[in-house]
Amino acid sequence: MTGFINYKKVLIVGLGMIGGSYAQKLSSLGFEVGALARRQETLDYALEKGYIAHGRLEVTRDYVSQFDLVVSALYPKAFLAWVEKYQDFLKSGAVITDVTGVKRAVVPAVQGMLRPDLEFVPAHPMAGSERSGVEYADCRVFAGANFIITPTERNTPEGIELIRTLGCILGFRHIAVLTPEQHDEMIGFLSQLTHCIAVTLMDCKESEHLAEYTGDSFRDLTRIARINENMWTELFLENRDELLSQMDLFLEKFTQLRNALAAGDTETMKEMMRLSTYRRSFFDKK
Amino acid sequence: MTGFINYKKVLIVGLGMIGGSYAQKLSSLGFEVGALARRQETLDYALEKGYIAHGRLEVTRDYVSQFDLVVSALYPKAFLAWVEKYQDFLKSGAVITDVTGVKRAVVPAVQGMLRPDLEFVPAHPMAGSERSGVEYADCRVFAGANFIITPTERNTPEGIELIRTLGCILGFRHIAVLTPEQHDEMIGFLSQLTHCIAVTLMDCKESEHLAEYTGDSFRDLTRIARINENMWTELFLENRDELLSQMDLFLEKFTQLRNALAAGDTETMKEMMRLSTYRRSFFDKK
Repeated sequence: MTGFINYKKVLIVGLGMIGGSYAQKLSSLGFEVGALARRQETLDYALEKGYIAHGRLEVTRDYVSQFDLVVSALYPKAFLAWVEKYQDFLKSGAVITDVTGVKRAVVPAVQGMLRPDLEFVPAHPMAGSERSGVEYADCRVFAGANFIITPTERNTPEGIELIRTLGCILGFRHIAVLTPEQHDEMIGFLSQLTHCIAVTLMDCKESEHLAEYTGDSFRDLTRIARINENMWTELFLENRDELLSQMDLFLEKFTQLRNALAAGDTETMKEMMRLSTYRRSFFDKK
Repeated sequence: MTGFINYKKVLIVGLGMIGGSYAQKLSSLGFEVGALARRQETLDYALEKGYIAHGRLEVTRDYVSQFDLVVSALYPKAFLAWVEKYQDFLKSGAVITDVTGVKRAVVPAVQGMLRPDLEFVPAHPMAGSERSGVEYADCRVFAGANFIITPTERNTPEGIELIRTLGCILGFRHIAVLTPEQHDEMIGFLSQLTHCIAVTLMDCKESEHLAEYTGDSFRDLTRIARINENMWTELFLENRDELLSQMDLFLEKFTQLRNALAAGDTETMKEMMRLSTYRRSFFDKK
């Protein structure tokens, strides 16, 4: 392994919004980007836009073995199945990374089955869109976003460094290294819980007539209620224990505020608001 | 009452973010705007910026009796106290409006005590900022926002029309008329519940280290967790029954999603997400 410049042929497996955005950015930087997709229209679109140099619907040894770096942009289970089925096609020394939003369900399983001459460096780009599909690819979403690498003791310093460089050239502002466990706890709270809240809010009432009275708050809190139900259901289930404990924490605090209101306990209400104001202030700083 | 053009002298009572924004816009349109404030620095700032033509700290008959239209931008209880104490100073035929975010607690009380030669037309501009104070005044927040008038049978068609025109010239996109009861139910759900959720989310965990991992979702859901605890505690308490029932509705639906996750009931989870996606789509249309 001799630095990023030697990984010039990159295979994107799964050309959705995120896979497409990786392809777009890497092609614009001069990498030779290939892709595996399920539909010819996806490949046609990405070819026409210049996101990829070539692509295939079928996974063949001939095609896959040319790549130095493989980025899986599949859902968690599909990623596991892909590695199991096709890892034999990869060239020796190839590095695999991913974009999966849950890590404990993916990292040990993939690393445990991987050929010893391959390396899987797990990563989670914390950027995206509530829209699905390559036609929503837009690598500008990476600017200012966070990129989390979740290596284990099976990873090499060189592998981790390679994926850190990948995050860097994709344009992420902050690159962090966490364990898969730390990642899943944090994501359960910051991302999965917030999606549960947005979905719940939107499910509470008919919305057609509400739209004309809505202020910014409700719009902000429900933007992510437009959700890909297949992907998120899978992500939630793959992180079930953590997400449940984050939901229960939220329920406990929400009930505390509810009961303070019911009791007319203004001091508790104000205390909770002062705390939220204080803690939110850290998000305004750089 | 002979149309908006005759109401050229407008008094803003309470020069905070919203009162200041009203003053800014009305002055820019050529109205003569006066103000009552609690601190000289507030008046100085508004004078220097040209938001007001003149202002006072003390409420005198001499000053107050010159105005055709009085806009209260006070908190609910302070507004009630102001009307009780100073309505005798108002000139006959003057119209009062407000910006209060709760209506059942304000409208009957004010209308019930008002001199018969005055009219109070309640309104709620659904725009604002999580920042307080005249230095955050910015009438651009009205553009594209909703303005709700909540009249009763005590109001005249002319009074309602006058305040509709006010909403219009302030730049609001959509002007609606609701009863105070409809207003409070809707605001309990769309605005107060969302603030409760944001406060709760932010109170769940220490945030200093979270900021560097946060994606857009958590930022969006907690923007309004930076909150004026005195104002919002008063607003919540003045709408306690409605807010409690909205919080309980949310708790019920959230618990439903939590239990579906715990049980691995993917069909319920997906169904809730499909519903939220469908309902959220109404917010994307004009």
